[in-house]
Amino acid sequence: MAPPIRIGVVAPGGRIEPALAERVKAFAADTFLDQAPDIVFHPQCFLSAGHFAGDDEARLKAFVEVANDPAFDAIWFARGGYGACRIAEAALAQLNEASRKKTYLGYSDNGAILGGLYARRYAHVAHGPIPVDMTRAGGEAAIKRALAWLIERAPESVELGLMFDSKAAAFNITVFQSLLGTSLEPDLSGHVLMLEDVGEYLYRLDRALFQITSSANVRSVKGIKLGRILDVPENDRPFGATAEEMMRYWCAKAGVAYLGRADIGHDVENKIVPFGARRV
Amino acid sequence: MAPPIRIGVVAPGGRIEPALAERVKAFAADTFLDQAPDIVFHPQCFLSAGHFAGDDEARLKAFVEVANDPAFDAIWFARGGYGACRIAEAALAQLNEASRKKTYLGYSDNGAILGGLYARRYAHVAHGPIPVDMTRAGGEAAIKRALAWLIERAPESVELGLMFDSKAAAFNITVFQSLLGTSLEPDLSGHVLMLEDVGEYLYRLDRALFQITSSANVRSVKGIKLGRILDVPENDRPFGATAEEMMRYWCAKAGVAYLGRADIGHDVENKIVPFGARRV
Repeated sequence: MAPPIRIGVVAPGGRIEPALAERVKAFAADTFLDQAPDIVFHPQCFLSAGHFAGDDEARLKAFVEVANDPAFDAIWFARGGYGACRIAEAALAQLNEASRKKTYLGYSDNGAILGGLYARRYAHVAHGPIPVDMTRAGGEAAIKRALAWLIERAPESVELGLMFDSKAAAFNITVFQSLLGTSLEPDLSGHVLMLEDVGEYLYRLDRALFQITSSANVRSVKGIKLGRILDVPENDRPFGATAEEMMRYWCAKAGVAYLGRADIGHDVENKIVPFGARRV
Repeated sequence: MAPPIRIGVVAPGGRIEPALAERVKAFAADTFLDQAPDIVFHPQCFLSAGHFAGDDEARLKAFVEVANDPAFDAIWFARGGYGACRIAEAALAQLNEASRKKTYLGYSDNGAILGGLYARRYAHVAHGPIPVDMTRAGGEAAIKRALAWLIERAPESVELGLMFDSKAAAFNITVFQSLLGTSLEPDLSGHVLMLEDVGEYLYRLDRALFQITSSANVRSVKGIKLGRILDVPENDRPFGATAEEMMRYWCAKAGVAYLGRADIGHDVENKIVPFGARRV
């Protein structure tokens, strides 16, 4: 049997509590027994500086340190929360060859770093559950799914539609919007692009989709799939269309194929989407 | 004395009430007497379709109709409220030569059309108060400022810093972000770019500024000035920097000059910023 893998956890955006780290480690040990990974939460995860888990320098340093350390098999982002785009470009410029061998798993705001890694042809980048998901009701299932994929690429952890898709990538709509035109935007030609969001007014998502579907890069995708759009706040007036109608509208305008729903979102059902070609 | 000008009002985003139109017309008549403009509110302003002042077709048709009509000297956008980017590209493609002679005044979500007009080298495009500002406390001052500029280019209506700036443009941060990479994004090289916002968390504006200051177009500006950042909602944790510190941070990172404050914003003090070179 292969020795347990070693996972480094860093927090490029918001901080987490030390108690959450302990809970995730205990759950991993109980669930995976002698296959249980060694999960190392970098102390930076618990720092606090305004909105962020430590200032830009602390967050950048922790990410680069763990990414460049060949003793780690994977980087798992502790949580989302805005902040990754502040350090992504400078951090990526400091990565070494060891960083290319490891797996990167996260979602939400972490999409800024995942996008940047994939743009730089990193081979093991994936969108999926992260430690903070443990705090959701039923969050253990999400954590187990993430770890089973990190440990042994468990096929049941992966978004089912990927069985039929040649290449894929997944992002939060608002985060993906903000990467357009920056060095963090990966080439998505021929990909199935999966998009999800949480806590956004539909009119805001509509505006983001205007920009997203105006992009020549996005117009070169195989198609777009819509993940879950959760916790839409109530506006002073109803938007007048569902999230799916909105997505169909922009896809039709841009001549992009709308390919239906994707099993991703800010919830415990969030499946894993490895970026790039599917490897069976 | 010149005959009164004729102003057409359309609503590319949200709707207004007929009573507001009457109030604005009465105020204009009382204030400007025999110089009072003939203000024609297109019936489309009062339509309702979900979030919008009528569906895309109705909003597009009204804008194109008034823009192409040589009997109007100016288009004044009734209010903001998301929606302009849905119709802007199709509308601009239908404009005729008469549309190039008139003045366009608006702000907030209207920036999508103003940006698109300026990108197509329209000479009389400006950021400034609109009819809905009448509903603010002290809103008469904003309406008077807008009309005095439309009627006679009153110099006291114009943002004071423009006396020293070669070329300028002004936008809402969130709206301007969404224009990047689209056909509505104007060339801003050598311009002073003034940016304001309202009702946004600072972390959201920070993310928008990452994208904005990553743009090669924005990196070619003479510099950025910060308008007012109003009604910032309270977040679960303080951001840790003021809006001005945030703007300085991104300007420094991008090598863009930060040129201080601009007298624009979602308030009754909002001054007029004609796009392009100052004409005395």
